[in-house]
Amino acid sequence: MRFEEKTLESKKIYTGNITEYEVQTVELPNGEKATREIVWHNDAAAVLAIEDGKMIFVKQYRKPIEKISVELPCGLVEENEKPIDAANREFEEETGYTAKKLNFVTSFYNSPGFTNEKLYIYEATEIEKVNQPLEQDPDEMIEVLKLNFEDAWDFMKQGYISDSKTVFALYYWQQKKVGEQDV
Amino acid sequence: MRFEEKTLESKKIYTGNITEYEVQTVELPNGEKATREIVWHNDAAAVLAIEDGKMIFVKQYRKPIEKISVELPCGLVEENEKPIDAANREFEEETGYTAKKLNFVTSFYNSPGFTNEKLYIYEATEIEKVNQPLEQDPDEMIEVLKLNFEDAWDFMKQGYISDSKTVFALYYWQQKKVGEQDV
Repeated sequence: MRFEEKTLESKKIYTGNITEYEVQTVELPNGEKATREIVWHNDAAAVLAIEDGKMIFVKQYRKPIEKISVELPCGLVEENEKPIDAANREFEEETGYTAKKLNFVTSFYNSPGFTNEKLYIYEATEIEKVNQPLEQDPDEMIEVLKLNFEDAWDFMKQGYISDSKTVFALYYWQQKKVGEQDV
Repeated sequence: MRFEEKTLESKKIYTGNITEYEVQTVELPNGEKATREIVWHNDAAAVLAIEDGKMIFVKQYRKPIEKISVELPCGLVEENEKPIDAANREFEEETGYTAKKLNFVTSFYNSPGFTNEKLYIYEATEIEKVNQPLEQDPDEMIEVLKLNFEDAWDFMKQGYISDSKTVFALYYWQQKKVGEQDV
């Protein structure tokens, strides 16, 4: 079975600051035509950092869901930038911490049915608070918080933690703790 | 610290079949203005089903990433529909299987920085192949496949499994297997 969809026509609808919206007409392998709505979006890089049994999160308002959201520190990967460099930069900018080393954990497309956004998650080791104020983007207000596993899981149950990368991170953390108990 | 962003102006840019693109001007708590690009998208419901040690996946082409993607069966939640009902419907439509029961595993927003899409994952129990052809949406070509854990993990390493819900599902499966070994 062939799967590939050939682009017959593509129409740029809007170019924003972080997204570009495009509508494509495609030809399916069976010859039929279909429409694809595509949101072009930079990749993003997030950092999973645990210090003294507490994970470091940032709290911010997410307009599309009209909610305060507690998430892993994360930022956009700029053009020609390595995801790991974006992760390092955003981690320090958003939290005031630096990591001696970032280890790749996983990556995934958030919703490949309509967007190309890919998210990379790195785990920080040997983190350190640097005496430096946060350099926040002017249009984003964030607050750093640290939670132990039970409180973080509770935040998830209550809906304060509810985005894909951070939900993934809590399950990953749970598994890591099980592994540590085995040792 | 206050976080809420007040909508000052909102402009509908495009209404597609599965997405609606809107640009908002918001007022930040500090009085500054900012722009928010928002993609309105229905919620989605996915099914994690394991039969005889193999997970059931669907293989389809994802135009935004120009790749074949192997994913959990998943579909849109219609208006006024319960996510679990959408999960049941899509599972049967896409795979030809039914589940006696679906248990809620988790839910998450895929990318709350720019879209309200929320994804629900259910775990199927007592699944059964029903003698019924697949009722596929006319604009989507899918193929069912079943993989054991090692092969699925391999597919992830090779990039054939690369979307948030399915990557989550494999880590969840890994954890489940560890739990089973402990018993």
